[in-house]
Amino acid sequence: MKIKAPYLLFIGDAKDPLSIKLAKGVVDWRPELAIGEYSLPGCEVTTSHPEMNIQEAVDKGAKTFVLGFANSGGTVDEKWIPYILEAIEAGMDIASGLHQRLDSFSEISEHAKKHNVQLIDVRHPVGTFKTGTGNKRTGKRLLTVGTDCSVGKMYTALALEKAMSQKNFDVSFKATGQSGIFITGDGIAIDCVVSDFIAGTVEQLSPPNNPEHWDIIEGQGSLYHPAFAGVSLGLLHGAQPDALVLCHAEKREHMRGIPGRNLPSLAQTLELNLNAAKLTNPDARFVGISVNTSMLGEDEANAICAGYEKEFSLPCVDPIRHSVSRIVEQLQ
Amino acid sequence: MKIKAPYLLFIGDAKDPLSIKLAKGVVDWRPELAIGEYSLPGCEVTTSHPEMNIQEAVDKGAKTFVLGFANSGGTVDEKWIPYILEAIEAGMDIASGLHQRLDSFSEISEHAKKHNVQLIDVRHPVGTFKTGTGNKRTGKRLLTVGTDCSVGKMYTALALEKAMSQKNFDVSFKATGQSGIFITGDGIAIDCVVSDFIAGTVEQLSPPNNPEHWDIIEGQGSLYHPAFAGVSLGLLHGAQPDALVLCHAEKREHMRGIPGRNLPSLAQTLELNLNAAKLTNPDARFVGISVNTSMLGEDEANAICAGYEKEFSLPCVDPIRHSVSRIVEQLQ
Repeated sequence: MKIKAPYLLFIGDAKDPLSIKLAKGVVDWRPELAIGEYSLPGCEVTTSHPEMNIQEAVDKGAKTFVLGFANSGGTVDEKWIPYILEAIEAGMDIASGLHQRLDSFSEISEHAKKHNVQLIDVRHPVGTFKTGTGNKRTGKRLLTVGTDCSVGKMYTALALEKAMSQKNFDVSFKATGQSGIFITGDGIAIDCVVSDFIAGTVEQLSPPNNPEHWDIIEGQGSLYHPAFAGVSLGLLHGAQPDALVLCHAEKREHMRGIPGRNLPSLAQTLELNLNAAKLTNPDARFVGISVNTSMLGEDEANAICAGYEKEFSLPCVDPIRHSVSRIVEQLQ
Repeated sequence: MKIKAPYLLFIGDAKDPLSIKLAKGVVDWRPELAIGEYSLPGCEVTTSHPEMNIQEAVDKGAKTFVLGFANSGGTVDEKWIPYILEAIEAGMDIASGLHQRLDSFSEISEHAKKHNVQLIDVRHPVGTFKTGTGNKRTGKRLLTVGTDCSVGKMYTALALEKAMSQKNFDVSFKATGQSGIFITGDGIAIDCVVSDFIAGTVEQLSPPNNPEHWDIIEGQGSLYHPAFAGVSLGLLHGAQPDALVLCHAEKREHMRGIPGRNLPSLAQTLELNLNAAKLTNPDARFVGISVNTSMLGEDEANAICAGYEKEFSLPCVDPIRHSVSRIVEQLQ
């Protein structure tokens, strides 16, 4: 499901910067994919891309109307339907990362058919999935794994891809979640795939490649998260990574969404992931640690990273404060 | 998705006993759920249940027409459609464990609507799924886990439920695969659930219960299977088992479906499962080993079981040759 660029990023009347994380991700990482932002009266946030309406965007070549906001429950609010219909009439595909399918509204699906545009629900992957084999594929792969959900696995993977690209590596980012898919226009939301096919889908997402090519695969969840560890394990086995990067967020009080459940230690997370990775790649190794230190001051952040670096004999950086180049050096 | 009993087991013109495993499972474990078998000219196998046609079965009270055979690819052969339509007309629900949905045939779905009967595709679970929490639930749970797929996890779980029931335990079998669902008329095919919800679905399947109640949960796959380990891990976390039984098949040459990939040792499998189980139940423990020794003679089978028993200090039985009562003793 390739999302055609350029996009018009629709952010409605959003008020919370976090709710437009998806649109913001595109502007941060692939600004060239979006031609502009379309907000409505009452909107209090911005992606910083130029404001334009549907007709202006289409006149400038926009191909896809991206619902660039999230809401709790993941439903499509009926108040957005007129804008979606207008975009369809103007000839744009519609792309959504919401849980509720666009074609669950008959007016949207009929309109899309009539105007011959695609409805792309990234949370409802389409295609033929296969079960995995674990057989070794050519090319190299790096996977980001985490102590918890939402600790910077996508950010770290994108930062690594960017740094590697600047150093002339032959490298691709492989998206496994909705934000990553909008950022690259491609990928599979792995937690939306039927569970029989988790590993097999990752094998398809990162097929055999040139021996020197690197796929940087976006990790999901955590082997220590009681809701999502199955996804993380299938993704790890399917990725058969040569290199792993551990992602962690400092000052997290409990596992995401589960008050009272402590995070695992970095040592535990390194050990469990490495042992599990060896099932499909006996040569898997960790090449670095990426820490989100946004809750800390500069000195404390540097001290934390230096401490992990010494404890685990791996380069440890905050990709926002520092850079990931010391991790990339491990791949050369 | 409760399958209404009694069933009429439709086995078509099957020639291979393995292809009617699903119908046979019902007759072996819950003979009272099936009123009879319906086979067609050319059929060379039988479940041993009385032969009867659709009208006879309905006259005797049959409520569901069960497609009791499997075929490679999991498609619904068009030659069965007339029989399905006849069963619908006679007022029966239709239940299928095939991959292809019954309602993908418009004649079947229209006929079902007209005659007000249900189409039950056990490989396409319906309902509202939630993500897991890992929070401790009341009641006790036992999960069967394996060195590989198809090593006897369902059989062992059903044998344990039967033996426990005979010893007056308050006990339920919880099906997680299609055969188990037909055998109990209830359950969820866990490998058909969207991967985000693996653990959460098992939490729903085995909800809080009386402190002395045991759910015997059917395991799936293996933590060492490169295609299916994610399902096995999510199932393990969602089950939060107090007790685990390791299932293994002797003389298996490679992991199921993956020539060249060796099975893990029993020691590895015990250790990995126990460590993973502790995430949601720190008190999890193994209570026995169940070995399929059908490829061995009597003496060799007994020697193998005695060897594992000594090595791991756990009762080790072949549930077909011996009985599972020595494992049940561990639960008292």
